[in-house]
Amino acid sequence: MGQTIFIPRETDANEQRVAASPDTVKRLVGFGFDVVVETGAGAGSRIIDEDFTKAGARIGKAADAAKADVVLKVRRPSEAELKGYKSGAAVLAIMDPYGNDAALAAMAKAGVTGFAMELMPRITRAQVMDVLSSQANLAGYQAVIDAAYEYDRALPMMMTAAGTVPAAKTFIMGVGVAGLQAIATARRLGAVVTATDVRPAVKEQVASLGAKFIAVEDEEFKQAETAGGYAKEMSKEYQAKQAALTADHIAKQDIVITTALIPGRPAPKLISAAMVASMRPGSVIVDLAVERGGNVDGAVPGKVVTTANGVKIVGHLNVPGRVAASASLLYAKNLFAFLETMIDKEAKALKINRDDELVKATMLTDGGAVVHPQFAKAAEPT
Amino acid sequence: MGQTIFIPRETDANEQRVAASPDTVKRLVGFGFDVVVETGAGAGSRIIDEDFTKAGARIGKAADAAKADVVLKVRRPSEAELKGYKSGAAVLAIMDPYGNDAALAAMAKAGVTGFAMELMPRITRAQVMDVLSSQANLAGYQAVIDAAYEYDRALPMMMTAAGTVPAAKTFIMGVGVAGLQAIATARRLGAVVTATDVRPAVKEQVASLGAKFIAVEDEEFKQAETAGGYAKEMSKEYQAKQAALTADHIAKQDIVITTALIPGRPAPKLISAAMVASMRPGSVIVDLAVERGGNVDGAVPGKVVTTANGVKIVGHLNVPGRVAASASLLYAKNLFAFLETMIDKEAKALKINRDDELVKATMLTDGGAVVHPQFAKAAEPT
Repeated sequence: MGQTIFIPRETDANEQRVAASPDTVKRLVGFGFDVVVETGAGAGSRIIDEDFTKAGARIGKAADAAKADVVLKVRRPSEAELKGYKSGAAVLAIMDPYGNDAALAAMAKAGVTGFAMELMPRITRAQVMDVLSSQANLAGYQAVIDAAYEYDRALPMMMTAAGTVPAAKTFIMGVGVAGLQAIATARRLGAVVTATDVRPAVKEQVASLGAKFIAVEDEEFKQAETAGGYAKEMSKEYQAKQAALTADHIAKQDIVITTALIPGRPAPKLISAAMVASMRPGSVIVDLAVERGGNVDGAVPGKVVTTANGVKIVGHLNVPGRVAASASLLYAKNLFAFLETMIDKEAKALKINRDDELVKATMLTDGGAVVHPQFAKAAEPT
Repeated sequence: MGQTIFIPRETDANEQRVAASPDTVKRLVGFGFDVVVETGAGAGSRIIDEDFTKAGARIGKAADAAKADVVLKVRRPSEAELKGYKSGAAVLAIMDPYGNDAALAAMAKAGVTGFAMELMPRITRAQVMDVLSSQANLAGYQAVIDAAYEYDRALPMMMTAAGTVPAAKTFIMGVGVAGLQAIATARRLGAVVTATDVRPAVKEQVASLGAKFIAVEDEEFKQAETAGGYAKEMSKEYQAKQAALTADHIAKQDIVITTALIPGRPAPKLISAAMVASMRPGSVIVDLAVERGGNVDGAVPGKVVTTANGVKIVGHLNVPGRVAASASLLYAKNLFAFLETMIDKEAKALKINRDDELVKATMLTDGGAVVHPQFAKAAEPT
């Protein structure tokens, strides 16, 4: 009998996603694994139990985690969940490791080998495993849909017999994967789109999507692109100059979408209360960084706030989870692609190569300890 | 001193629109009228009192209606409102006259000359006064935004490193102004769009927007186009054939938007409970006819209903009012264009030519009686 892979139903109330799809289940079964899916695990993503059984899985219950050699999850397991896992089990999830030392220590104590999918290096080989990209792409799309939903005008210019409705001026702050998809989606809907980022390289990408790039383009800006493709934190001076330019720009916008994140740090504040106050009534701001402290002054996680001057600030939680049926399919594929590299197909069993660069980059806990160099120190006994 | 035009704040809780814009106010003031706008009348459409005063209006209160020679409204005045109007005043609004004989009688009794903007003939001269078109256009746009908001996947096809998200299959039933804009908006968002209508002429329009036409194209279909551009009610036989074809098609759709209305009649039922049950969980239906009885079995006015099989049926009220800031600007322009034809610019006063075809087509009540041929009989004392 083969090893067991377990896919639980996520326990977080805001989590509609699931860590497997019928497609990935079928492939894992094909490798010789017993795949057990907790009943209802796919319900929030429009995958019914029967879809999983057709793919070769068995439908089980939460307690089946105890037999699993591999657990595939969306979110980091809670302490309660960890109690039900077998020591030595591999757990793959979005682990949210920064600032959560106690949770990592609990994972180590449970004896599981935990992998943080969001630490996957951004190299060609790992592109298919990049959960940040696959989920941010959908978040960028949904941010524009959410903005259009809250906005009290049409986004496209409409020329009618009774006059012309002007196109919505839309400004995207932070042009990573989410920002690029937000630009593309707003452009699809006919908005006039501008965008900004601290990295000069994206200027060309922004232009290629039909949007205009807005930034203080000084020396620091030109040197700011980092190897990892992430934005580094800019100097106070640069931030002040950029803030002045964007403050002026924001006052003229109908819709602003912010997507700026710095790994392991709180999200940078991009929009002050004064900037919000400068906007016209009916304008909409979507803060995709709201779960990381927020880019926007006054954004409230999980709420749509209307300010005194009539500006709506949208702070939805788990935005990829708002298009869960799409997000789960891509996330499941990301997990599968990484897990596949750790499967010994002859032995039909998990075989983790601890020298592999993907394993080294993502492995948080192993053999009872926090092993990841970035997090091991914080977890040392004090 | 000139005549007075009054623009009240709408009293219906679901009505965010207003019957004037700063632009139309400015023009009316330019004709020599005193324009009085009730305080807060534009608040739901993002027009503040100051915008109206800058355009030359005076801000007043509801009681100022008593002095008005012309009242511009969005919805038919209630009996309470009519009590505050001067006998002989002209009232322009969307009067919703069908099946509302008591309300028309009350309007007659109040002595006002009431014009139903939705009865405007669809001729070239009156295009700029066509409130059905201007508002349906925005409703068609918003229907797609509302569908995308409720839908748990992305609409466009997305090709990513982790696989392809398929485009949403979207079906538009009823291709008038709303349907055409729904097709255009769904296409903008990257959906795969099909559409149907009982009129053969729209087949070409559908194709020109990049969508595919779905219909039983028999003799009756070919003869079904009416002079007014509206759909006439089709035979029971045709409806059965068309229902069989669409039933098959609907079962494969992700999003369906229905827009079928027949003036003066309840909306035709296009989607049965069985058809809803045939759709996959997560599918979304938007019923734009929900206020007229609905095209969809199970649609509830003002609600988003989720069926037992996980289909969402969206029945928002007053969909143009969901993009009120755009809708009011166009509606105000429609009203202005019609009112302008009834203004004697020398005398700087209203001068209604009761022989004008636009006046004859829209005038419901005059001189204490219901005068419109379509409604006069119902209002006769019994």
